Amino acid sequence: MSVTAAKGFTAAGIAAGIKENGNPDLALVVNTGPRLAAAGVFTSNRVKAAPVLWSEQVLKGGEVSAVVLNSGGANACTGPKGFQDTHATAEKVADSLNSAGLDDLGGHAPGMVAVCSTGLIGVLLPMDKLKRGVDKAVAQLSPHGGEKAAIAIKTTDTVHKTSVVTKDGWTVGGMAKGAGMLAPGLATMLVVLTTDADLESDVLDRALRAATRTTFDRVDSDGCMSTNDTVLLLASGAAEVTPEYAEFAEAVRQVCDDLGQQLIRDAEGASKDIKVEVVNAATEDDAVEVGRSIARNNLLKCAIHGEDPNWGRVLSAIGTTSAAFEPDRLNVAINGVWVCKNGGVGEDRDNVDMRYREVHIVADLAAGSETATIWTNDLTADYVHENSAYSS
Amino acid sequence: MSVTAAKGFTAAGIAAGIKENGNPDLALVVNTGPRLAAAGVFTSNRVKAAPVLWSEQVLKGGEVSAVVLNSGGANACTGPKGFQDTHATAEKVADSLNSAGLDDLGGHAPGMVAVCSTGLIGVLLPMDKLKRGVDKAVAQLSPHGGEKAAIAIKTTDTVHKTSVVTKDGWTVGGMAKGAGMLAPGLATMLVVLTTDADLESDVLDRALRAATRTTFDRVDSDGCMSTNDTVLLLASGAAEVTPEYAEFAEAVRQVCDDLGQQLIRDAEGASKDIKVEVVNAATEDDAVEVGRSIARNNLLKCAIHGEDPNWGRVLSAIGTTSAAFEPDRLNVAINGVWVCKNGGVGEDRDNVDMRYREVHIVADLAAGSETATIWTNDLTADYVHENSAYSS
Repeated sequence: MSVTAAKGFTAAGIAAGIKENGNPDLALVVNTGPRLAAAGVFTSNRVKAAPVLWSEQVLKGGEVSAVVLNSGGANACTGPKGFQDTHATAEKVADSLNSAGLDDLGGHAPGMVAVCSTGLIGVLLPMDKLKRGVDKAVAQLSPHGGEKAAIAIKTTDTVHKTSVVTKDGWTVGGMAKGAGMLAPGLATMLVVLTTDADLESDVLDRALRAATRTTFDRVDSDGCMSTNDTVLLLASGAAEVTPEYAEFAEAVRQVCDDLGQQLIRDAEGASKDIKVEVVNAATEDDAVEVGRSIARNNLLKCAIHGEDPNWGRVLSAIGTTSAAFEPDRLNVAINGVWVCKNGGVGEDRDNVDMRYREVHIVADLAAGSETATIWTNDLTADYVHENSAYSS
Repeated sequence: MSVTAAKGFTAAGIAAGIKENGNPDLALVVNTGPRLAAAGVFTSNRVKAAPVLWSEQVLKGGEVSAVVLNSGGANACTGPKGFQDTHATAEKVADSLNSAGLDDLGGHAPGMVAVCSTGLIGVLLPMDKLKRGVDKAVAQLSPHGGEKAAIAIKTTDTVHKTSVVTKDGWTVGGMAKGAGMLAPGLATMLVVLTTDADLESDVLDRALRAATRTTFDRVDSDGCMSTNDTVLLLASGAAEVTPEYAEFAEAVRQVCDDLGQQLIRDAEGASKDIKVEVVNAATEDDAVEVGRSIARNNLLKCAIHGEDPNWGRVLSAIGTTSAAFEPDRLNVAINGVWVCKNGGVGEDRDNVDMRYREVHIVADLAAGSETATIWTNDLTADYVHENSAYSS
């Protein structure tokens, strides 16, 4: 279903030969209208890949007619040539779509084609292969192409990720790729969402920012922030329905939340999914800061891997933040057992059952009533292996 | 040599039975004067162990007659009982020293006994064993006890760490323990330094803060900040020499730098020591922020473990900071090869020789003339194993 669950979209996913192993590596998503509204959120990393710099400009116009995504190379830190390549890719997509007669809405223009790339930093893309791949993808565009598109954007992902929410006469669907370098402070990873609801780009923008702030932005697998992260939301208006904002925003949030969970469950080398819930914080910012500090503590992540409910490492992590709290009022629960009460020893840690994949840590700051949840993974030898055995 | 290299100190290291494996776990360092000046720097973690809270108070007086250190338990997050135990430990040390007739300087008072603990958080110390251990340590105090004291404070350290600098008639020596949970933003790990120079406590304080700021504070093995970190500097005045401040401060810096290097070389599970040198920064703060961001990037640390000169991960890490730089002016050298120039591909990465334990990364921000160096380690499966296989 993926990006073609909503009416008014076609997609394709093909092997262009960018990846040396011959796996699918090029995806195309086309909005067939009648509306071409779009919004985007991009990495907050100050070192931005060429496709991010390009797509940021495209999105300023509020209209996107097509998105081309490649795996097999990030086109980041590639200088002026890399940016020229992104520009040429957008031109090629517009030309190829127009040549194929897919120009019902007045024709595709390069300035309405968003570009996303993912893979190794610092390597130029094989443009000949990529351009031939664009022609191949255009020829295979289909209202049933969503799954293939989702497969073609995989890098170290073991599964492709899609999600759909269908409401009364309209739909939000999407696809995501990402298995490492997941970090907050930004829209993370590559994500394309589509809807057939009839909405203006400013409404899409508001709903998308609200959704990413509490979903992708609170997924932190390894603390590392990518140069290429992009989340796009395209609306075709094909359903001829304009939902209430709140209902639409909730549907977008649900799809983002579902895709974010899929990213965590497929994180490189992970054996545990860790839900870090911070409660009774003085402010939401405090809750997020504490949650991220806990989620990024390598020693705690190792302990969780070893099924050791090491709450001392949770307190150590809380202690490095600027959040409002008193050390002797902190409480910590691991999988429902309050192993730390009032900053000291609480219930018997032997009662904590850590056999299952999901681990739930609650950090009670006893300083207010705000809350935030950050998702992360354990740190494993497999993570080290995946990220040291080859360049990615 | 260690803490007894300087005249005017005795020390001992014994097995008190706090560690279940019977290894040495209690160290005592006594200043025999004629002066009892002292300074201390403590963890900036807001969750502080009982011995840190105690010793901070002791140091406010500027005089320390003895330091007692135990491994086998951190006495952190142990509530009021933990603090009472620290107090009782200081009382026991003073009583035992006085009872043994080691009260030449008017007798030991609990308020002049600093206490340091290291080990698992959230467990009360076995006070009966600890008190008996104090008597045993007092009985073994010796001007040659420095090595034994250094051995008794080991936790997961594979070697004990000592250092000595001897100048014209005076000496600075010391011992350190630490093999994980090394992080900056504080005085890291447990360190006791001694000198026989004749100096006031405010001079010691100034020299110690200056030294730790550019040594222990820039050692970041795993980004995790302890609840117990303490660095103490004691002066006996026994050499009857008052060196110039600059010369003394440099000697203290040298001992701190040497001990910091030993901590990095013994970091848990590490196979590479990584020197991250940031140059041409607009400010020293920028240089430190960028260096720490690079040093804490798990993906880069995995790549270095795999001997992969993955400069893209260096740029990703730089991009998450607030330092002054332009992405297209960044340069990165790995082991002398400028693999990234002007934000893009530089010299051939195949020329980077990464076979040796030390790896040198230079990040050139091209934004000024300030510099800072941060030391870290690679991230390895052994690190994961050491920190997941047992509680620590």
